[in-house]
Amino acid sequence: MDRQVAPGPVDGQEATGILEYARASVDPALRRAVDSLPGSMRRIALYHFGWEHADGTPAAGNAGKAIRPALVLTATGALGGQHAAAVQAAAAVELIHNFTLLHDDVMDRDTTRRHRPTAWTVFGDADAILAGDAMQALAQRLLAEDSHPASQAAAARLASCVVELCEGQHADTAMEKRGPAEVTLDEVLAMAEAKTGALLGCACALGGLYAGADEEDVDALDAFGREAGLAFQLIDDVIGIWGDPSRTGKPAGADLIARKKSLPVVAALAAGTPAATELAELYGVPYEEGELERTVLAVERAGGRDWAQLQAADRMSRAMHELSRAIPDPEAAGGLLALAEFVTRRSN
Amino acid sequence: MDRQVAPGPVDGQEATGILEYARASVDPALRRAVDSLPGSMRRIALYHFGWEHADGTPAAGNAGKAIRPALVLTATGALGGQHAAAVQAAAAVELIHNFTLLHDDVMDRDTTRRHRPTAWTVFGDADAILAGDAMQALAQRLLAEDSHPASQAAAARLASCVVELCEGQHADTAMEKRGPAEVTLDEVLAMAEAKTGALLGCACALGGLYAGADEEDVDALDAFGREAGLAFQLIDDVIGIWGDPSRTGKPAGADLIARKKSLPVVAALAAGTPAATELAELYGVPYEEGELERTVLAVERAGGRDWAQLQAADRMSRAMHELSRAIPDPEAAGGLLALAEFVTRRSN
Repeated sequence: MDRQVAPGPVDGQEATGILEYARASVDPALRRAVDSLPGSMRRIALYHFGWEHADGTPAAGNAGKAIRPALVLTATGALGGQHAAAVQAAAAVELIHNFTLLHDDVMDRDTTRRHRPTAWTVFGDADAILAGDAMQALAQRLLAEDSHPASQAAAARLASCVVELCEGQHADTAMEKRGPAEVTLDEVLAMAEAKTGALLGCACALGGLYAGADEEDVDALDAFGREAGLAFQLIDDVIGIWGDPSRTGKPAGADLIARKKSLPVVAALAAGTPAATELAELYGVPYEEGELERTVLAVERAGGRDWAQLQAADRMSRAMHELSRAIPDPEAAGGLLALAEFVTRRSN
Repeated sequence: MDRQVAPGPVDGQEATGILEYARASVDPALRRAVDSLPGSMRRIALYHFGWEHADGTPAAGNAGKAIRPALVLTATGALGGQHAAAVQAAAAVELIHNFTLLHDDVMDRDTTRRHRPTAWTVFGDADAILAGDAMQALAQRLLAEDSHPASQAAAARLASCVVELCEGQHADTAMEKRGPAEVTLDEVLAMAEAKTGALLGCACALGGLYAGADEEDVDALDAFGREAGLAFQLIDDVIGIWGDPSRTGKPAGADLIARKKSLPVVAALAAGTPAATELAELYGVPYEEGELERTVLAVERAGGRDWAQLQAADRMSRAMHELSRAIPDPEAAGGLLALAEFVTRRSN
């Protein structure tokens, strides 16, 4: 990162500064890209990104924390590249992320996203699907029209990533339809890597490509982002069960009540202990009022919480190892480290 | 085209030969691309292309007439390029076409495609959406991994085309929700150009790019494909009303019964004659048994058929003009001309 936004040692402030810098760098390119869409596709995209209300009047914008664009720009800067050269790639990654959100919300029937009604609830399923399709195309167009020597390799990598995201979302929805005993820990980990880790890894890899890094370093950056993404998912799942609702903004135990096969739950189910058997029995039938405490305790006693926290720590340590392979200088790697710690910090 | 498949003058046999040649050239690349998809996405794509039955057993394959790949390869050949160099681009265009079919079938709730149940009826909406998303990504990956000097310009053009296809599909579904008097002829023509003409034009343009044609010729090829596509849509709409069901395979008057705002209908509604008023009254309420003949006559008396046929002839003449701009040698242009005549031939 530029000296003024990522100076010296890693601290909590640094990640926030990087994210603000990334949002400010990428938003103009993102906005220009969205504005180039024809009428209806533009309107839905503007709504989704929070730049317009449902009635088409301007809004302040609320396009999320810009973690993926920040990873692109920070990885580029850490390897000696210019941020300005990677802005289109960062915008492309953000468009891909948001295209998958639009489609996932349709499939999952989720009604709220970033504290607003999801696009399909406002514009209907068909238009939300079409706007997502157009946003995937727009992401690829940004790279295809980018004259940077890395843009074509980045396009190939981003396209492969989209295929992986699709398979991850498929695995997620398919798993929810299966019984709790039928899902293995390896399957859930593979799903989380495809659904969450792949695009974080791809963002880091694109940053590397735009800095002219060699293939080995680009792959190490990809692995760094994937491992950090898995750590994030593990911590997110832990928070979904044991987090403080006043801090998470989610009702307590919502994932358990919905019988979600989150990572701690699947680990607990696989433990082979009496607590695991009790959890399997609870998960075998729909949630009944008042059972939440018993379910939480069963996951905990079957070791789900400890496993997830150890696994998250292990993934973060693997992430650090991959990062040091790609960027041996700790000062240069500081920004990426700060971002990885930021996404998993909510565990504290 | 190669001498052995496109010799001498334009005739009915020529287009069939070109289409068979295109199918045979593109299928191995297409099949390889689909086989590279992960498990579930691959299975849905294999089913959609007719290479597998719903239970995963092999099928003979029935991936349509390969008009778009044929346009890519024929345009390349006509401008002195090598077919073999444009095969990945032809496969990419075919993947884009099929991704839109997968998604359109979900949105339109169409249950039959190429005489088989549509993918969403077999695998569910979510998986059909995801497989479409993966196929769009795969198309872009083929171009991004293609070392041909035109591949990146082709990727940008194809991505822009996808945005246009999305807007066209949106306009189509939005129009169906409006009253018959609220839709103008310009709107329906613009919708047909975006939904049908754009990808045919893009296929021709990509062929030009892969032959190293200059921008002006590439744009003329695009315009040729668009105009031919509009002619095709006009003729297709005429057949939807006056075609012989035993030859079209569709029940007589299905579009009128469904109150579709096809081009001849909208032209008839705009005529301002007593027959137009009668048609507007018929279209203002759901179809009632026995009204088909009266509706057909109203469209005809209001001039819908004549207008559509004249308009189709005009579009074909514009297509020929654009073609002669890009490829002045009639012999070299013969293959593209044969394909354009083939797609509109069903009118006879």
